[in-house]
Amino acid sequence: MNSSIIDRSVIEQLVRGALRQTGSSSSAPATAAAARVANPAGWVDGKPNLRVSISARHCHLTDEHVETLFGPGAVLVPEKDLYQDGFYAAQQTVMVVGPRRRMLGSVRVLGPTRPFSQVELALTDSISLGIDAPVRHSGQIDGTPGCVLVGPVGSVQLDQGVIRAARHVHMNLSDCDYYDVKNGDMMQLKITSPDCSVSFEDVLVRADKAAKLEVHIDTDEGNACNLDAATEVVLKKSGCGCQK
Amino acid sequence: MNSSIIDRSVIEQLVRGALRQTGSSSSAPATAAAARVANPAGWVDGKPNLRVSISARHCHLTDEHVETLFGPGAVLVPEKDLYQDGFYAAQQTVMVVGPRRRMLGSVRVLGPTRPFSQVELALTDSISLGIDAPVRHSGQIDGTPGCVLVGPVGSVQLDQGVIRAARHVHMNLSDCDYYDVKNGDMMQLKITSPDCSVSFEDVLVRADKAAKLEVHIDTDEGNACNLDAATEVVLKKSGCGCQK
Repeated sequence: MNSSIIDRSVIEQLVRGALRQTGSSSSAPATAAAARVANPAGWVDGKPNLRVSISARHCHLTDEHVETLFGPGAVLVPEKDLYQDGFYAAQQTVMVVGPRRRMLGSVRVLGPTRPFSQVELALTDSISLGIDAPVRHSGQIDGTPGCVLVGPVGSVQLDQGVIRAARHVHMNLSDCDYYDVKNGDMMQLKITSPDCSVSFEDVLVRADKAAKLEVHIDTDEGNACNLDAATEVVLKKSGCGCQK
Repeated sequence: MNSSIIDRSVIEQLVRGALRQTGSSSSAPATAAAARVANPAGWVDGKPNLRVSISARHCHLTDEHVETLFGPGAVLVPEKDLYQDGFYAAQQTVMVVGPRRRMLGSVRVLGPTRPFSQVELALTDSISLGIDAPVRHSGQIDGTPGCVLVGPVGSVQLDQGVIRAARHVHMNLSDCDYYDVKNGDMMQLKITSPDCSVSFEDVLVRADKAAKLEVHIDTDEGNACNLDAATEVVLKKSGCGCQK
């Protein structure tokens, strides 16, 4: 595997996603009154339109680290908008180097910049790098391993920030009402896929006014259930994700 | 990522496995009579001892292909016994090359040899190689994609045989009785793991007199649930794998 291959597969996976109707048995009231109400962000025909996206390995950078890696005055250049408004895959990539000089040659930077730099890997990536990355929710990086980031102009030693991002679902407050959940709750996601169906537990609700309903899983999770071939995706509040 | 890294991680993963008690509520009779009965293969203390193993990418070869790749008269040299009696990881590895000259530099050969050569990849590997490998049970390779295998002496063009091995469970007839299943049935496997529990559906029963109870999942599946950190594994006949 060379770096150009890694890069291509990362880009492919960053933009993969499954956009399907939820399998919930709840249905929106099909009244004229409901039809007059504007759809919340991400809703279609009066109900949430569940999207499941695979987040390939990527990193978030501070403004300072962008300049260190890409040169004085450098800023992230948006290349492709993500589904969540305001977020994008940048043109820039970095090399991530592990403790035994193993490396991932081309890891996409996502924007906008953040107060702390963070590298998000699937466990398969983590094993390749020789970094024991813990499952964490984004931003919870205290005590996590570090790595070296290398850009075309400079490098950065991160003392911490390498995580395996925990599966989660972005949603707005209308979505929360629909599913009867709140920020911080856990949900279940069942993916029905030929010969490799999977139910994922521990899907954290991350509620935000501006969010659109979207589950984020990593490449290991997406590949374990062959998401691209999935015939149904069902998000449930609690109880059993195996049964419809 | 270079080939020596791939090789090391493959070997690490070939020998990883989780050996735990089943979480079934059934318990063996703790009588003196039961204690006198010899345990079936793989049983401990009068009941099955569930093992869940991660199969890293690997290949099976015919005798003819072993000679083509490694030289006239060459045979597979066992390096490490697998859990199932009579099977082993060989010293030999091959390079697997995809249609656009992407490659996996070092893929372990498992022995003994077979009537047909076959390459078993996780979907992550398959994407890296640029091969659209379908989920298949071992041996069912009709119509699957091929690849080029390269060894130190020669190379082989496989017209078919690249698959993603479907998750399955090896068991003997005593295990079948215990779980009340038969060859060809489907089971469910729940892995409880911190922040990333998963229930796998579609676990095929492969019953054989000589087998020991062992679930085989691939690296994507094993990493999706962080098997090494799992606190409980439960195999169930049917119904809901999410609830104990």
